[in-house]
Amino acid sequence: MQEVLCFSASEQARDEVGQGVKQHYGMMHYHMGWANANLQPQTMPSGKRLRPIFCLLACEAVGGNPGDALPAAAAIEILHNFSLVHDDIEDGDETRHHRTTVWKLWGVPLAINSGDAMFALAFAALSRLQRRGISPNQILQAIDIFTKTCIELTEGQHLDMRFEQRNDVQPDDYFHMIKGKTASLLGCATAIGALVGHGSSAQVKAMQHFGQSVGLAFQIQDDILGIWGDPDVTGKPTGNDVLRQKKSLPLLHALNHQRIGPKLTTLLAGGISENQLPRVLELLAEAQSREVAQEQQLFHKAAAMKALEESLGKDAQESALAALADSLTNRKA
Amino acid sequence: MQEVLCFSASEQARDEVGQGVKQHYGMMHYHMGWANANLQPQTMPSGKRLRPIFCLLACEAVGGNPGDALPAAAAIEILHNFSLVHDDIEDGDETRHHRTTVWKLWGVPLAINSGDAMFALAFAALSRLQRRGISPNQILQAIDIFTKTCIELTEGQHLDMRFEQRNDVQPDDYFHMIKGKTASLLGCATAIGALVGHGSSAQVKAMQHFGQSVGLAFQIQDDILGIWGDPDVTGKPTGNDVLRQKKSLPLLHALNHQRIGPKLTTLLAGGISENQLPRVLELLAEAQSREVAQEQQLFHKAAAMKALEESLGKDAQESALAALADSLTNRKA
Repeated sequence: MQEVLCFSASEQARDEVGQGVKQHYGMMHYHMGWANANLQPQTMPSGKRLRPIFCLLACEAVGGNPGDALPAAAAIEILHNFSLVHDDIEDGDETRHHRTTVWKLWGVPLAINSGDAMFALAFAALSRLQRRGISPNQILQAIDIFTKTCIELTEGQHLDMRFEQRNDVQPDDYFHMIKGKTASLLGCATAIGALVGHGSSAQVKAMQHFGQSVGLAFQIQDDILGIWGDPDVTGKPTGNDVLRQKKSLPLLHALNHQRIGPKLTTLLAGGISENQLPRVLELLAEAQSREVAQEQQLFHKAAAMKALEESLGKDAQESALAALADSLTNRKA
Repeated sequence: MQEVLCFSASEQARDEVGQGVKQHYGMMHYHMGWANANLQPQTMPSGKRLRPIFCLLACEAVGGNPGDALPAAAAIEILHNFSLVHDDIEDGDETRHHRTTVWKLWGVPLAINSGDAMFALAFAALSRLQRRGISPNQILQAIDIFTKTCIELTEGQHLDMRFEQRNDVQPDDYFHMIKGKTASLLGCATAIGALVGHGSSAQVKAMQHFGQSVGLAFQIQDDILGIWGDPDVTGKPTGNDVLRQKKSLPLLHALNHQRIGPKLTTLLAGGISENQLPRVLELLAEAQSREVAQEQQLFHKAAAMKALEESLGKDAQESALAALADSLTNRKA
């Protein structure tokens, strides 16, 4: 997978590269985990490449040749990484995958611009579907799905940033936010995979719904682990998201709980220290916020399996997509 | 023109808008000059919309219906404005068209993300060519030209930012930079206009060359006015670009001049005050940097007219495109 992405994007870079823009492309390679901070080629820690894997598996599942989906898989991974470069600036995060972030190394102005280039290169990668014998109409459909996803990504990020300043966030706002930040791109990956694999339009639609639902279940699982995950497994302290007052689903549920909400709001006002953590966890238990989040998680997991069955029929249960979705939504870290 | 863009992009926004992302779209409307800082609809100062005008005129010039090019014209203007939103952050500029910039009003994180959304919406606008009876193959060609331009824009911006830190910038680097920052998008506008107007591939290619050459001539004219423009006409002080030590073509020429270069480098080291300005202008005169820039400007202007003739034949001289190019490259402010 990595070779493919590496080949695809660096070939693109070679096409475009002039003497003066080596650093511009080098920064992207650094972010992707293909170069060190001196821009020397080196394999570094990077993401799990989950989204392109979903794309290739969706293509294969509907009977297509996964090789045909490679340009789309690369486009999706590059788009995801563009959004990480900008998110890191917007959130002020100084490390990712235990490495210094791009903006922290080269400054905000060059980092914004490097992210912009990755955005454009994602479209360039997608356009290479033209070399795979996919019809122009199908490619335009893929571009439309991809473009809509880009817009939804920015909406999700906007909501996420605004949540930090707002005290009136409702669970509905939360779902709008994670739909944009997590579900949309996973749904895009499976939909375009199915499209390029010549699935029927009903299959493509169901496959998009599958990806989106996996994304929602994945994110809610993340929220549960962020509060109740085993520190030995997650590598993060107990109640990490509570200490950061992250507006994740369990906390939002408790804050909007008629009886518990006002108590919790008072407790959280003006920050929270580790010795207040047990009291917050008590309130979350009283509000049954963990159970509510788990219910939601199971709901979206079930929706994902239902959509996968709509798309693949009786093969769904045995498919690699089902196994991957299952492992992601049952994970402990 | 403005109504068209307004309709196109705000309709898009209406499609996508949810309760929680009103501000996200409002910031874009503010930047475009369609809303005030309270996000109330109001017509505010904005750009000249030159790029979309070139696009529509190119479509008409090859015999097409300019209405068919509207989605492309809107896409090009939105892309241009995305780049302005990010450039303002990268350059730390606090005003544009006498209005406070987006990042200065809403902070860098939301502004980066708002720019990203405009980038995506530009592709969404372009995709609407599908509603104008343009063939899928032609639309894919237009998307490819557009995507390549996006990449070149980021290269130009990268070089421009790096120039500020470098003391070894050559005129060749300068041309690479203005090709990306100015020429590429104007060439994209005329090329896609001709493509959508069903021009032949030779016409499209020549029309792209025309737009690029106009862009280069335009930028060099800008450089000349930045140093020798009449302050009463430009509204900027004499020698403005010299005081800012902007690495424009005349200054780069003098800095790379065998005899004058070392003297100028010494003079500029550690900043320059207004009373040193006459000495700098003297050195620029000795190096004949203004004449060299004018020669370059005329060269690209002639190349533009030659390309226009290749595209339109004997009608070129009388065309609205020729008149517009002429007014832009002969301007005094």
